[in-house]
Amino acid sequence: MRICRYTTAPDTGEPAEPGAWGIVHEDAVWELTGSPYGAFGRGERVGALSELRLLAPCEPTKVVCAGRNYRSLLAEQGRELPSEPFLFLKTPNAVVGPGAAVWYPSGVQDLAHEGELAVVVGRTARRLAPADAADHILGYTCANDITVRDWQHPSAQWWRAKSADTHCPVGPWLETEPAGLDDLRVRTTVNGEVRQDGRTGDLLFGIGELLAHVSAHLTLLPGDVVLTGTPAGIRPVRPGDVMAVEVEGIGTLSNPVRAWPEPAARPR
Amino acid sequence: MRICRYTTAPDTGEPAEPGAWGIVHEDAVWELTGSPYGAFGRGERVGALSELRLLAPCEPTKVVCAGRNYRSLLAEQGRELPSEPFLFLKTPNAVVGPGAAVWYPSGVQDLAHEGELAVVVGRTARRLAPADAADHILGYTCANDITVRDWQHPSAQWWRAKSADTHCPVGPWLETEPAGLDDLRVRTTVNGEVRQDGRTGDLLFGIGELLAHVSAHLTLLPGDVVLTGTPAGIRPVRPGDVMAVEVEGIGTLSNPVRAWPEPAARPR
Repeated sequence: MRICRYTTAPDTGEPAEPGAWGIVHEDAVWELTGSPYGAFGRGERVGALSELRLLAPCEPTKVVCAGRNYRSLLAEQGRELPSEPFLFLKTPNAVVGPGAAVWYPSGVQDLAHEGELAVVVGRTARRLAPADAADHILGYTCANDITVRDWQHPSAQWWRAKSADTHCPVGPWLETEPAGLDDLRVRTTVNGEVRQDGRTGDLLFGIGELLAHVSAHLTLLPGDVVLTGTPAGIRPVRPGDVMAVEVEGIGTLSNPVRAWPEPAARPR
Repeated sequence: MRICRYTTAPDTGEPAEPGAWGIVHEDAVWELTGSPYGAFGRGERVGALSELRLLAPCEPTKVVCAGRNYRSLLAEQGRELPSEPFLFLKTPNAVVGPGAAVWYPSGVQDLAHEGELAVVVGRTARRLAPADAADHILGYTCANDITVRDWQHPSAQWWRAKSADTHCPVGPWLETEPAGLDDLRVRTTVNGEVRQDGRTGDLLFGIGELLAHVSAHLTLLPGDVVLTGTPAGIRPVRPGDVMAVEVEGIGTLSNPVRAWPEPAARPR
């Protein structure tokens, strides 16, 4: 099943846009009755996908991200395999949905895409065993861990390299039971040209291990997001580029890059 | 004016406890009518402070923290003065209120207190000028930036050193207009013994500069929390200790340290 969040309101560029949960079926969105974090079902038809604006299919209190988690990336960067997950945070203000602009801050020289498989938590999770992780996941989707590499020094905390507004596109929807999760293709293109092309079979720490490690320390709440890492091929983008992250069996998350600030769209 | 959040429910140890906003007047809590983020007033008397359980006076989507921001701490640690704010994140699951237990994770050797002045955001803030920060602040309070120093290596991202459940006590209430904000005493005791004793006049970057720097990159939303840094005297605590952070003119935030896990209180 595919679960989405949608709105009919115009994009204001504000973080945490209000929206409604829906179910994607054929080329339309249907009401999600009940709660995505409890019992739910499919209600009335809302409208065609083409008539609605999809929002990020999550409402996170935190976004926990795995770095250095694809063997292809570690090889490309000449790193040793870490002995435990390497994790960092993005803040919820960074989250935007499919189609939303990713803002390129003024003065920055190196802003990069990182296409990933992401999971959205469905049930409160604390000290999970790896085998229990799947039962606590609402669904699987695509994410783009946008990184301002100018601000990402090894000894620095990455709060602003990772968490600027719009720097965490997520979507287009959640697939609740993707087939072949252990070896899905995760591909990122820029203006149609392939930049990253990996498979989840190359993950160093799998989804169960990541959620177990995170939830040993932090309670994961419904709506929270965990990004699983990006394969080799991280490259800079420029204003005007269009990035697309495609996870096999789930969908494609496409976002344009735009120069920041645009005063009309970004009121102070 | 003093603004609080309170509940009459027992403490379950779960993050993000539901509560109501109130106004502290004399030794009682009164209803806060309206919204703390808009127009509000004082309604009916709810009950004596001693009869209610205060919660953290904030509902953050993110907690942004300043490190290395007191000259006394930089001198104690032998560091040069940084040329711009050194910031990091705590996640909202870490936030607890006055009196709540701070859990000491099993296997840890060095968990430390860091008493601080904190601010809670009242209005959406983006690209603030330092002089405009005060207008975007709902109030001022005490915080304890609990740190698991075992997990705080210079080259590591501090997600788990700073964000374990219960590792960000905040409270007891917000003071909306503290007198003498530029030079308040910030004192931390453990079992009544003074460990940290600084003054906000020793801050390297003041509140206006911190909020300007943060909001240049991340939109601050109503309820978000900014911790301003801790003075010299960070020291370890052990289960059984009671920490108290006192900010002059605001109040005292007291929290016991307890061993983790206690299975009955921390269900999986």
